[in-house]
Amino acid sequence: MSSMGGSADENLETKEMDARSVSSSHGQEPYVHKVGIPPRQNLFKEFQATVKETFFADDPLRSFKDQTKSRKLILGIEAIFPILSWGRNYSLTKFRGDLIAGLTIASLCIPQDIGYAKLANLDPQYGLYSSFVPPLIYAVMGSSRDIAIGPVAVVSLLLGTLLQSEVDPVTNVVDYQRLAFTATFFAGITQAVLGILRLGFLIDFLSHAAIVGFMGGAAITIALQQLKGFLGIVKFTKKTDVISVMHSVLSSAHHGWNWQTIVIGASFLAFLMFAKYIGKKNPKFFWVPAIAPLISVILSTIFVYLTRADKHGVAIVKHIEKGLNPSSVKQIYFTGNYLGKGFRIGIVAGMIALTEATAIGRTFASMKDYQLDGNKEMVALGAMNVVGSMTSCYVATGSFSRSAVNFMAGCETAGSNIVMSIVVFLTLQFLTPLFKYTPNAILAAIIISAVINLVDYKAAILIWKIDKFDFVACMGAFFGVVFASVEIGLLIAVSISFAKILLQVTRPRTAILGKIPRTTVYRNILQYPEATRVPGVLIIRVDSAIYFSNSNYVKERILRWLMDEEERVKGDYQTRIQFLIVEMSPVTDIDTSGIHALEELFRSLQKRDVQLVLANPGPIVIDKLHTSNFAAFLGEDKIFLTVAEAVAYCSPKLAEDP
Amino acid sequence: MSSMGGSADENLETKEMDARSVSSSHGQEPYVHKVGIPPRQNLFKEFQATVKETFFADDPLRSFKDQTKSRKLILGIEAIFPILSWGRNYSLTKFRGDLIAGLTIASLCIPQDIGYAKLANLDPQYGLYSSFVPPLIYAVMGSSRDIAIGPVAVVSLLLGTLLQSEVDPVTNVVDYQRLAFTATFFAGITQAVLGILRLGFLIDFLSHAAIVGFMGGAAITIALQQLKGFLGIVKFTKKTDVISVMHSVLSSAHHGWNWQTIVIGASFLAFLMFAKYIGKKNPKFFWVPAIAPLISVILSTIFVYLTRADKHGVAIVKHIEKGLNPSSVKQIYFTGNYLGKGFRIGIVAGMIALTEATAIGRTFASMKDYQLDGNKEMVALGAMNVVGSMTSCYVATGSFSRSAVNFMAGCETAGSNIVMSIVVFLTLQFLTPLFKYTPNAILAAIIISAVINLVDYKAAILIWKIDKFDFVACMGAFFGVVFASVEIGLLIAVSISFAKILLQVTRPRTAILGKIPRTTVYRNILQYPEATRVPGVLIIRVDSAIYFSNSNYVKERILRWLMDEEERVKGDYQTRIQFLIVEMSPVTDIDTSGIHALEELFRSLQKRDVQLVLANPGPIVIDKLHTSNFAAFLGEDKIFLTVAEAVAYCSPKLAEDP
Repeated sequence: MSSMGGSADENLETKEMDARSVSSSHGQEPYVHKVGIPPRQNLFKEFQATVKETFFADDPLRSFKDQTKSRKLILGIEAIFPILSWGRNYSLTKFRGDLIAGLTIASLCIPQDIGYAKLANLDPQYGLYSSFVPPLIYAVMGSSRDIAIGPVAVVSLLLGTLLQSEVDPVTNVVDYQRLAFTATFFAGITQAVLGILRLGFLIDFLSHAAIVGFMGGAAITIALQQLKGFLGIVKFTKKTDVISVMHSVLSSAHHGWNWQTIVIGASFLAFLMFAKYIGKKNPKFFWVPAIAPLISVILSTIFVYLTRADKHGVAIVKHIEKGLNPSSVKQIYFTGNYLGKGFRIGIVAGMIALTEATAIGRTFASMKDYQLDGNKEMVALGAMNVVGSMTSCYVATGSFSRSAVNFMAGCETAGSNIVMSIVVFLTLQFLTPLFKYTPNAILAAIIISAVINLVDYKAAILIWKIDKFDFVACMGAFFGVVFASVEIGLLIAVSISFAKILLQVTRPRTAILGKIPRTTVYRNILQYPEATRVPGVLIIRVDSAIYFSNSNYVKERILRWLMDEEERVKGDYQTRIQFLIVEMSPVTDIDTSGIHALEELFRSLQKRDVQLVLANPGPIVIDKLHTSNFAAFLGEDKIFLTVAEAVAYCSPKLAEDP
Repeated sequence: MSSMGGSADENLETKEMDARSVSSSHGQEPYVHKVGIPPRQNLFKEFQATVKETFFADDPLRSFKDQTKSRKLILGIEAIFPILSWGRNYSLTKFRGDLIAGLTIASLCIPQDIGYAKLANLDPQYGLYSSFVPPLIYAVMGSSRDIAIGPVAVVSLLLGTLLQSEVDPVTNVVDYQRLAFTATFFAGITQAVLGILRLGFLIDFLSHAAIVGFMGGAAITIALQQLKGFLGIVKFTKKTDVISVMHSVLSSAHHGWNWQTIVIGASFLAFLMFAKYIGKKNPKFFWVPAIAPLISVILSTIFVYLTRADKHGVAIVKHIEKGLNPSSVKQIYFTGNYLGKGFRIGIVAGMIALTEATAIGRTFASMKDYQLDGNKEMVALGAMNVVGSMTSCYVATGSFSRSAVNFMAGCETAGSNIVMSIVVFLTLQFLTPLFKYTPNAILAAIIISAVINLVDYKAAILIWKIDKFDFVACMGAFFGVVFASVEIGLLIAVSISFAKILLQVTRPRTAILGKIPRTTVYRNILQYPEATRVPGVLIIRVDSAIYFSNSNYVKERILRWLMDEEERVKGDYQTRIQFLIVEMSPVTDIDTSGIHALEELFRSLQKRDVQLVLANPGPIVIDKLHTSNFAAFLGEDKIFLTVAEAVAYCSPKLAEDP
């Protein structure tokens, strides 16, 4: 040994310890390490640990530890209303950042709100209402510093589509609005309940790839919907799929298009896209695309007012109700047929809104490196939508585009949402009459330029490169939305995501291991072609917990490896396989079905005169192997700490070939 | 080095290679192995491999390889009709075994069939019909040598309950029968389609524990149902839950019980249980419990005939239709309202029947060590039920109790099913009038003694010991069946099984690793208390593929480990954590969300001045780390083959503490 660690080295000890190897340090007979059996926990502790890992993985009560009672109360109140904690350290510098950011996102949100309300088949003021109350509630309860709250394109479209299939928004305005508030109420309840029950991880079941596809498809659908306002078409389909829309557009080409509208829309769309380009080229000019929409609205409104283009068929906003949000508590359906429908729609819209807000929150939290409690966020978002549903708002959430602007404008706290809210309040109180002559084509152009960024083709390419299955989910969601409807797209996205999970648990990977030359390390021979098989021994690694969902597959797959290997060995006149080592490092857990599968494997191997040997079972597995008596059944001397030790045990015992 | 491998040894080479260790073989500077990147496969090959692993894991086409065309055709026909292959080698010895086994299971099945038909609310002859045609079809197409085909208790009960909730079996006999055949038809179609599409693994989603609970609950329910016949009660509830049944039983205690019936039933039940006891005590007498039911039927029938006990209120079978199965092709609903209902019921009954047959097939195949192609079996079972539905049979499958008897009586091939089928044929043709005076109480006693074995309390105890979560599934299914209904129990079983899978994929385990003294092996410090942490380095193993469903959790969990560790280190005035090694051996795959999570982890660590180091990423993971450019982003020199090498890299770089 001394020849190895002998050289002077500042990390001598570590090195020397590394230098020693497993099977040699005790001379001839390899010293075999016992596989550790963890101390038995009592049932309650075990249960407690599982619950904690499942629902409190982020350890939200960490700060409450070792505090006095009154301090705990204060901390608890602060946890629900984070404004109390950041408000105390609020400073003028922070306010400056929030003010600028708030004004910028307000200028962006006002024209967007008016347009998005239309996607939800609601009057324009409802979009503004939803940018007034929810941001205030969020600022008090939310903990993201960068998210910009308000109506967003995809949720507006989803809500509009779902509601429309229940109530006609044109002939039955009152019921439609009531159902919209009902859905918003239950969206909020869904979000809050998921947060309170700490089931936030459920939204993780919509994979990133599926979201990329869904968002892209929704963006295309929304942009296509804008062709109505953009081309000045009066008769337009209610369906959202690309075929119906293009049919609608083309069939009205001869008499339904309005060239004045197109000219106005196209020129301002060009302006908006140019502003976007500038903002992208130089991040310093991020405010250019941020205020471009408002400028477009002002310019085009003045233009239409001066030229009276509305008399030449250019559709205008006409009327936005003046004044603050009226109460809508009594409009929510708490009984009757619509209750169930509102509930169902609310769950779907609430989940999608949550997905978007969570993604935004996480992204910016990781950029500024602060912790965000996903479940607490859900409670805040839920509370804001519940209050919103009672004050004539529809489902609000975090907006991708406005949050990015908020971030770049230098927001410091959720205070920027308060500033934005105040601006929207002033608009509602005093400025709505000014939007009378705003042409619809401008709103269409603003929406198109806003949603176009949601088509994240770069992400799609990356997904293609990394994971083909993910790409299928992505494209499935995309084409589902574009060619069928948002609901179908969503359904496809969720189904494919689930299929992937099922595939993962039913078909775990297995690999044959070989020895990397000059080491005691055994690795997948497909990954390391230089790794060599040990004659007479087959080493297989199982790469997953062995549960009922895969136990049978694992058993049969191992037997098939053995058959393949026996055939190969026979062809090459090599030593017959006499030992099968199952490397269990990645097997984190095993259940009753798994134990049965091992027993069956053992019996099948016995009939073929092959011995089963296990290497490195983890703490839970070794515990269960003992409780189920499989360890004794197999022979405890056949369970080793490492593959190397198992090989050292097998090799000298190999029978000579006849 | 020579001092280690120097001793003369027959396995010198192996030993010497084992003896060398990772970081020392090249003097001062540790020699670092490159992490292998597997050769890139083209897309088609990759796709092909995935499909093969998913649907053809058992490699069913193995025998077709390298054969001539005509040989392939013959093999193909033999694959569909295995009788052609085993029939050719059929011998008189084999026939002797099959004959004895066939006669034994026939004597067992005839009384059971008559009773089970009642569970399905059908006339007794339908039970016999289902023991005539399906076993013949199975004998031709099936490949299990031990399974005994026919109606079984649990499926009969399930079918009866499901059908009863759609059509009243008493007032609307014709529609009820037609719906039963329709359900049987679709049960067969479901089974065959699952087999043809090679989706057989779907039935693995019902965990072993859930099945134990479900079967036990169903057995109790069935036994309780028999109280009607056993106590001679005329008015009996249609519900199956224990509360309704006990209420029914107790409320009729004063005037509804018939003591003559009870005496006959109880004495024969005692006889049957005693016969069972003898069979259990000495396996040589396995035939005692097997023929006891038929003897009971004969004795009790003679007794009732002689004493005319039926005139004293002892209910008797009265009439069994004589003659073979009539055609029922025209009775199956292919249109109308009942089509959908039959379809739905058929899927459920078909799946449960499949679960039972598959479990039996696997058990005996592993006991006699022959291969069974699960998907081919499903096609055989499906074909048999489709044909059955057209010949007045209801859903048949493999029976636990009769298959065990078949096995012990020495059956050699599926020929024993043919023998049984012929006996049932003779019974139907000539013997049915003899059952006229058979008391219902005997049938009740036979069913009770048959299903009592399904209450597998030993398995439940083992499940409790091995896996608490499994036990919850088991008990949930059990109490669901007993206190609510078979459907509710089934629903609970499936839901809990799914919840377990979801938990598995959302909350993978992570562990802190330490170095086992005198080795280069790093293991979970909770399992190996002697393992020591490396100062300044935190080593975390992630025990699952990193997918969208868990990527966020994995990231946050790693950061929480780090925070916990930093706190601990601070308290002990030890070296600050400067390196975080993620051991990725068990991480078999990673998707786009997983890569994002790693990027976020990297950034968070950077802000804390901790370096991220990866150890042993598998072939797919390393490939994806490269395609996504994360490997370059992290620095390829920070990816190591083993934890030991990673530690060897980190240790000398540790900054001195201030």
